[in-house]
Amino acid sequence: MMIIKIGGGKDIKNNLDNILSDIANLNEKVIIVHGANHEMKIISEKLGKPERIVKSPSGFTSRYTDKETIEIFEMVYSGIANKRIVQKLQKLGVNALGLSGLDGRLLVGKRKPYVKIVKDEKIKLLRENYTGTVEKINSELLNLLIKNDYVPVIAPPAISFKGEPINVDNDRIVGALCKGIKTDTIISLFEAPGLLKDLNDPDSLINKIDKDELENYMKFAKGRMKKKIHHAQDAFENDLRKIIFSDGRTKNPVTDALDGRGTIIE
Amino acid sequence: MMIIKIGGGKDIKNNLDNILSDIANLNEKVIIVHGANHEMKIISEKLGKPERIVKSPSGFTSRYTDKETIEIFEMVYSGIANKRIVQKLQKLGVNALGLSGLDGRLLVGKRKPYVKIVKDEKIKLLRENYTGTVEKINSELLNLLIKNDYVPVIAPPAISFKGEPINVDNDRIVGALCKGIKTDTIISLFEAPGLLKDLNDPDSLINKIDKDELENYMKFAKGRMKKKIHHAQDAFENDLRKIIFSDGRTKNPVTDALDGRGTIIE
Repeated sequence: MMIIKIGGGKDIKNNLDNILSDIANLNEKVIIVHGANHEMKIISEKLGKPERIVKSPSGFTSRYTDKETIEIFEMVYSGIANKRIVQKLQKLGVNALGLSGLDGRLLVGKRKPYVKIVKDEKIKLLRENYTGTVEKINSELLNLLIKNDYVPVIAPPAISFKGEPINVDNDRIVGALCKGIKTDTIISLFEAPGLLKDLNDPDSLINKIDKDELENYMKFAKGRMKKKIHHAQDAFENDLRKIIFSDGRTKNPVTDALDGRGTIIE
Repeated sequence: MMIIKIGGGKDIKNNLDNILSDIANLNEKVIIVHGANHEMKIISEKLGKPERIVKSPSGFTSRYTDKETIEIFEMVYSGIANKRIVQKLQKLGVNALGLSGLDGRLLVGKRKPYVKIVKDEKIKLLRENYTGTVEKINSELLNLLIKNDYVPVIAPPAISFKGEPINVDNDRIVGALCKGIKTDTIISLFEAPGLLKDLNDPDSLINKIDKDELENYMKFAKGRMKKKIHHAQDAFENDLRKIIFSDGRTKNPVTDALDGRGTIIE
């Protein structure tokens, strides 16, 4: 099994037709996990509820998700981004089927009662928080669909143990899927050539990393890339063979990744 | 099998907790089909694209659906209304799974290249039209899910034979489902006590109709009720035993319908 993660950036969205054509030409069982960050920002603003990015004491950034935000989140992730990918894949002859983590309790986790943030160099607590973790996946549902030749297209939210929708990190979803579904390769497509030594120099790409030395590369990871490396370490605890972080903006992003472009961790 | 159609009106939305609790207490396999008319209107306006209702030469009204509208449609139907029902049912212990007609090509039909409307007493053609019919359902997918104890929660859009998203009538979806899935009873919940002889008099409810005499009651049907009666006739072409048009605004709307309230056609 191959898991392909399609990032939620603007340039990725604009390159969606290329990405999906490339996937349609693969001869392999795949699960797709996707984001919708860029559109979330646009729709939130249009609806008069601009997004609020917060920073945790350990330096990770995330979107503050109150009740209103999680509703917009569902609208954008399940309604726009997910259905667009499903429709385009169906048009290409791929029998795609979209799922949020709520559907059939696909992605279940713990809701954080509050989120700790750093503001003006002080630590604050934000309540009315609809974010959390993914701890369990419904692998029976995924296996049932895959066995019957459907290609699952998955996006957050997940569902809490108490039945509330929760915003969860996409890279964490990929990690959780690896635990429940025997996965050989993860391809993560985003708006960079891979992990760079110098964020401003695309030629500083790190092409190969030994999975046991991942920790040493943490220093090169900036912003959301920190989370990706962090969750990559988790994913390798299972049967995973390799993770490829690769550029989602090229003509054949998946083929490029499989041909050895990007950052390959194995 | 019982199909429960939950209308998309404001009062239905406000009564959703009662409707879903009532469904959760049923001891029967169900498929849920739902609308989202009221929210479609609100979100369309918020996004600066107010809905446009058009009237066909034969007197049926519908929403004009251009490219931008079908995108908002997916957002509202698949993203908001569908995920809300799925989440609330999951919270009630029902293993709901949401599907649009795009997912696994659940609902396939023909896209109308244009729509004929009456304006200023003249007939006009509107192009860039994303509406159509449902001609085929993926009953294998539904049976697979039902057999594995999932409760399908279905909403438009459907998908055209060419792979485009199309806005289709919900009552037509219910009719198409009856053709592919052996259905005993349809309960259609809306914002009225049932079919009324006089729209302004809730006491003028018609309680029982013989299915072979449906045509004689067409004269009492106003607005969207015309479509409902029309598609009810189609549904009876299969194994269906009865259709109940009933009030979705009560404390126990499904139980009420099964207890004989509303308009029962059999």
